[in-house]
Amino acid sequence: MRTKLLEMSSLVEKSIHRSIGAVVQKDRAAADEVLNNEARINAIELEIDALAIELLALHQPMATDLRFIVAALKINTDLERMGDLSVNIAKSALALIDAPAAAIVVDIPYIAGLVQSMVRKSIDAFVAHDADLAREVLASDHAVDDLRTACYGRINASMLEDRANVKPALSLLTVVRTLERLADHATNIAEDVVFYVKGIDVRRGAGMKNPT
Amino acid sequence: MRTKLLEMSSLVEKSIHRSIGAVVQKDRAAADEVLNNEARINAIELEIDALAIELLALHQPMATDLRFIVAALKINTDLERMGDLSVNIAKSALALIDAPAAAIVVDIPYIAGLVQSMVRKSIDAFVAHDADLAREVLASDHAVDDLRTACYGRINASMLEDRANVKPALSLLTVVRTLERLADHATNIAEDVVFYVKGIDVRRGAGMKNPT
Repeated sequence: MRTKLLEMSSLVEKSIHRSIGAVVQKDRAAADEVLNNEARINAIELEIDALAIELLALHQPMATDLRFIVAALKINTDLERMGDLSVNIAKSALALIDAPAAAIVVDIPYIAGLVQSMVRKSIDAFVAHDADLAREVLASDHAVDDLRTACYGRINASMLEDRANVKPALSLLTVVRTLERLADHATNIAEDVVFYVKGIDVRRGAGMKNPT
Repeated sequence: MRTKLLEMSSLVEKSIHRSIGAVVQKDRAAADEVLNNEARINAIELEIDALAIELLALHQPMATDLRFIVAALKINTDLERMGDLSVNIAKSALALIDAPAAAIVVDIPYIAGLVQSMVRKSIDAFVAHDADLAREVLASDHAVDDLRTACYGRINASMLEDRANVKPALSLLTVVRTLERLADHATNIAEDVVFYVKGIDVRRGAGMKNPT
């Protein structure tokens, strides 16, 4: 189970990384690679769900083992949706490939770096049963929201400046919004890790936002 | 468990309905009601998860009962995120409240009607163990995608026509995108219902899109 989840998360991380590379470096091959990864990610999701149900049925796990399987089911769903989101980013990258380079830079690499670090930490926290690391992820979520708001402002201003910017700006907005959703999924995973490790539910806890 | 899920789904359906009313009728009270519902939806999500774990631990369910609980865990997550999405729509409604009425109409009521019908059917399918009804939901997903694409085209055109439209148009784009995400969650629920009723996994099946 753990091995399969690791295979899943490593594929998803790679897809996210390549999809962002496709946007920032206008790299068509990277975008295509992400589109090709999707089928494998979907297949592993089904394998993991089937495995979880088998474990629940055959071994009737209790306490920590039970919480692990429930967390794995939820994390699996989040990872698969993150794979889908990387496909969305790859498609936006292809739409942006002919846009002027200047229109693209904005703060995408910066916000993408932060989101990738959240994704990596949430998965590492799961692997290492590290609730403190998971809490670091929860603490980063606000920073992504602030960056996103600043990004939106700049992209909207570029549309008002020149109507030639409207089309690429809309693709960029999609990329930023998708990065934010990836951060929300990392937050969901981190919450599940805290639940699994500590047996407490931190969702909707003090000082945390409401991930979607 | 079933009672709690019904309470959850009825609250979420109501929030979705009111949030769309808030956009279409510029109804500030409806938007506020959605914002106020959020805490209750979040609380029930936690209650349902706790109940599922208790059922798994104490009763060691097999076959259909086990599939029911796994489906309930997943549907619960989808419902809570749908509640969050209705909050997003309510916030867009508040942002749109001073926009000219003409800018708002577009096809929002039409696409919203379709999405609400998908949500309702997916929940009815779960309650009635009705895999055929669930498959109807899966079949509607393409229609939403087509409507969304048409909507995007019209909203983008309105931005190019007049820069005064840019700000309300961006809020409208958010509403349309959020409606599409609601349809994706309804699709996820319908897939879980087919799995629970029939014991087969229709995700990534022939003729179906990849819900995010």
